[in-house]
Amino acid sequence: MRKQITGFSNPTVKYLRSLRDKKHRKRAGQFLVEGLRLLEDARDGGRLPRKLVMAQGREPHPLLERLETEVAGAGGEIIETSPDILTKITGKSNAQSVVGVFDEWDTALSQMERDTAPIWLVAQALRDPGNLGTMLRTGDAVGAGGLILIDDCADPFSAEAVRASMGAVFTQGLAQARWAEFVHWLRGGAGQLVAASLRDAVPYRGAPYASPCFILVGNESQGLPESYEDECDLRVTMPMRGRADSLNAAVAGAVLAYEVLASLEG
Amino acid sequence: MRKQITGFSNPTVKYLRSLRDKKHRKRAGQFLVEGLRLLEDARDGGRLPRKLVMAQGREPHPLLERLETEVAGAGGEIIETSPDILTKITGKSNAQSVVGVFDEWDTALSQMERDTAPIWLVAQALRDPGNLGTMLRTGDAVGAGGLILIDDCADPFSAEAVRASMGAVFTQGLAQARWAEFVHWLRGGAGQLVAASLRDAVPYRGAPYASPCFILVGNESQGLPESYEDECDLRVTMPMRGRADSLNAAVAGAVLAYEVLASLEG
Repeated sequence: MRKQITGFSNPTVKYLRSLRDKKHRKRAGQFLVEGLRLLEDARDGGRLPRKLVMAQGREPHPLLERLETEVAGAGGEIIETSPDILTKITGKSNAQSVVGVFDEWDTALSQMERDTAPIWLVAQALRDPGNLGTMLRTGDAVGAGGLILIDDCADPFSAEAVRASMGAVFTQGLAQARWAEFVHWLRGGAGQLVAASLRDAVPYRGAPYASPCFILVGNESQGLPESYEDECDLRVTMPMRGRADSLNAAVAGAVLAYEVLASLEG
Repeated sequence: MRKQITGFSNPTVKYLRSLRDKKHRKRAGQFLVEGLRLLEDARDGGRLPRKLVMAQGREPHPLLERLETEVAGAGGEIIETSPDILTKITGKSNAQSVVGVFDEWDTALSQMERDTAPIWLVAQALRDPGNLGTMLRTGDAVGAGGLILIDDCADPFSAEAVRASMGAVFTQGLAQARWAEFVHWLRGGAGQLVAASLRDAVPYRGAPYASPCFILVGNESQGLPESYEDECDLRVTMPMRGRADSLNAAVAGAVLAYEVLASLEG
């Protein structure tokens, strides 16, 4: 059964709108996903929204109808509201005609099974949600097992990160940990920790990468702390032919990840 | 001599603020650059602002003092104003304490000298200014000659693109052209046009790249039009081990650019 919401001051509208804010997301343990395409990605990844919020007067779509049936079948809530209210919820002038509310999931490191993939991406204090989402997307492309977020990173459940991930947030593994906790976990099994670095490094082409390879990328403006670099099993350097001495964090991770992929498969 | 501006309704404040908007930038032929670091990058690239706007009560800085002297010496205008007004100009809550106003420069394709670099980046209908700036930054890193923007791209002079470029907008070549114009120019000399593609493509590793190599990246959601792909001298494919069939545009360009660099130098 579809619940109709017509008022801007409806408590559900206020609640949904609050999920744009990280503090409220963390308190509620829920996040918003905008648009049918991402909702389909979530479904393919085995995740259904708790609430499905659809615009009145939307174009009918068979995939949306299937999703509605499945969400209702799983005990989720189906809500219809005006396009204006959906716009208010998402804060976008050209809102998508459907939004899903998902439960956040467990991002404990202990859930990661390192033997399931040859490559893992690790980001330290990555602040830009677009970079974070892009790393998830790259992880999907290179067949990585997932993304491990170290220290204070952007929220992987923010709308921008989810969008930039192109749905990979639903299929890549995702963990959050402090550095000490990560190192303890990493050293409890096989795993090579690799970072791009300017000191004491070998050329990234042809470096002795080993599976499972954990590719560590540092903060956008500070890079990695020196002690984190020291912990790495392999430090590699990429050509820098211009004035700058670094790449965008998501770009550096991707260039390195493709090199590791070629090396491990070659 | 420093001009003092104290009122929010001062016409100069209104003018500077209007430069956040693309339409006004294009009409004025000027754009804003925020922060001493980017202003220093511009200076290193041989470009001085026409106006230098500094916050009252800022921390003194020798580089800023040098810049002020040079701008004044070149006939530019030096303005001091309150941090609140600077915040209003940039629209950022934590505004930098200095902003420069630059003249846009000529982005005609005819200015590009293809023989000066082995790699050139070409973006078609790239809509995200962050991606555009990131491509400029990557271009700097791989020693590219510049970025050629085809069809309707984001504005390279927007604050977001300038920031993401980490100053490379001032040192990389920059051209804007329609596709037909670009192809005509390209075929008037040596140059290999390469794109990542899913059809009729060879593996990107070890493909026969040739200098000057023009790496073409398509629109974020549509990719390249088929007829554009057909024009390419070489279509390459990158491994896609996951669900998705594409990478972020700036990431794809970077992975390919590093491969071309290794190939040409190897």
